[in-house]
Amino acid sequence: MPFGELDFLAMLHERLCVAESVPGLLVGVGDDAAVLSSEGRELVATTDLLIDGIDFRLAECGYRLAGRKAMAKNLSDIAAMGVLPWTAFVSVGLPGGCTRADAALLLDGLIEPASACGCAIAGGDTKRSPGPLIVNVALLGRAGGKPPVLRSGARPGDLLYVTGRLGGSLLGRHLCFEPRVAAGLRLNERFGARAMIDLSDGLSSDLARLCAASGVGAEIEAERVPLSPDAERAAADGRSALAHALNDGEDYELLCALPPENAAALQADPLLGPLVTCLGRCLPPEQGVLLRRGGATAPLEPRGFLHRFDARPGGGP
Amino acid sequence: MPFGELDFLAMLHERLCVAESVPGLLVGVGDDAAVLSSEGRELVATTDLLIDGIDFRLAECGYRLAGRKAMAKNLSDIAAMGVLPWTAFVSVGLPGGCTRADAALLLDGLIEPASACGCAIAGGDTKRSPGPLIVNVALLGRAGGKPPVLRSGARPGDLLYVTGRLGGSLLGRHLCFEPRVAAGLRLNERFGARAMIDLSDGLSSDLARLCAASGVGAEIEAERVPLSPDAERAAADGRSALAHALNDGEDYELLCALPPENAAALQADPLLGPLVTCLGRCLPPEQGVLLRRGGATAPLEPRGFLHRFDARPGGGP
Repeated sequence: MPFGELDFLAMLHERLCVAESVPGLLVGVGDDAAVLSSEGRELVATTDLLIDGIDFRLAECGYRLAGRKAMAKNLSDIAAMGVLPWTAFVSVGLPGGCTRADAALLLDGLIEPASACGCAIAGGDTKRSPGPLIVNVALLGRAGGKPPVLRSGARPGDLLYVTGRLGGSLLGRHLCFEPRVAAGLRLNERFGARAMIDLSDGLSSDLARLCAASGVGAEIEAERVPLSPDAERAAADGRSALAHALNDGEDYELLCALPPENAAALQADPLLGPLVTCLGRCLPPEQGVLLRRGGATAPLEPRGFLHRFDARPGGGP
Repeated sequence: MPFGELDFLAMLHERLCVAESVPGLLVGVGDDAAVLSSEGRELVATTDLLIDGIDFRLAECGYRLAGRKAMAKNLSDIAAMGVLPWTAFVSVGLPGGCTRADAALLLDGLIEPASACGCAIAGGDTKRSPGPLIVNVALLGRAGGKPPVLRSGARPGDLLYVTGRLGGSLLGRHLCFEPRVAAGLRLNERFGARAMIDLSDGLSSDLARLCAASGVGAEIEAERVPLSPDAERAAADGRSALAHALNDGEDYELLCALPPENAAALQADPLLGPLVTCLGRCLPPEQGVLLRRGGATAPLEPRGFLHRFDARPGGGP
């Protein structure tokens, strides 16, 4: 019997009754990162495993971009909590044939996005892999002025914003995206973000997750979905650019729910104003998750990809 | 050019100048775990990557013991810091053919040693592996009443203690050892442990590391090295039981340096007294690391194994 990612996370979730009895563990499995409290200061922690052939193709992208993606993917999870990355712990399994120069490139790729936001690699483990290149990053973040933003805080009436432009990441952006660390922190600390998630599996899937966690519905406007130039290029496969923007994975942009009274200030913000787009708004839960297009609305099915190279093809509107 | 574990860690160490500028990062790469300070409370963090064919043979040991070893190995690192395990973050790459029942066994194995010491699995990542089973655990611990114990605090004259019995772990104990969490905490909080390390690569190698980090020499008595029954059995290969106890990896016992004035209380302690053995003592650095045997002393070369299944055979006295 094949065994899917979500089943295992669900199993982990079910089994973690012990979590509730651990002092200082505020949020366990189920958000972009866990939330811990140490002496009144919130810490967040996340981990991601990347494997050659699943998350990247080493022969095509090289060691540097493989390392860069592994770090940036974790930084994106921390960004989605609206806190500052602090320290990273890196495990690598180096395949046969990996040279010292290769390992140095891998390390360059890991260090670059981390040091860009003041995060240090504070520990690690490394060994030979009998199979593909393996890179695991575990990342700790810590709250600045405001507590971490969960997926679960959105309310009906909140506006939905997304950073950047969506779709077609697999044409290359998934290897070199900029994690939205500064944006996530600012959305939290200055603009009262109530819920946030990073778009790893595709807008349609990740919006559904945010809505489910918050107990809200949502309506987004097809015309407002910011299409990446890559989404237009990817549309050469016959699916529309919009379908790519809604369902392609690995955008690593932030989706955020904000109280409507903060919208004007956000739009006017010199840093975030040009970066964010208002896609729609949250609704009462019974209305479901909807896509409005040309005056008509229809349910927006979660059709995001789970992984890069063993992805199940998503459908599209 | 083949690329060894220690080279990569050294490279990581050299490149981490940024670590020094990260607030609250007290100790980075180079100890059993990193040490962080959050609002005056010390946290420790460690990570270990285990791969089928390197750290265990899945076809022989099964999913449960593979998971158990991955968690216990990390708990042992936290134990060696003399602090309490807090939360774990688990990444798994499940090989083709892994069933739901297999995954449940893996999770059982991960949860069992963690929950035994009050540690919760607070997050994770899981995906299909195109190659072998991969299990990465990242573990956070937090200090109780005393700061974490580093490798670097031993002084000439300190006594050297080891928990348990050594050698021959590869006959099976490396899969089912009990991480010395309670002992590590007690050695720190009650008996003033000045330096500690867990024996992952073999006593001769790990003693050399503790001595190098502390800037001391050491002398241990061959007659006092506590031989595991497995060391006796392993001696069927022609190397002595002592050679196995000195050089076999994966004992996951603690090696600890204590001020001599605490020795009597330690030996009288109802929990630790029966568990620990005094092996010898620390010397001034210029004396090196010595093995005394039958009245003669000779340098004790670090000849531990690095890994389980791709191990380089160690020599022996």
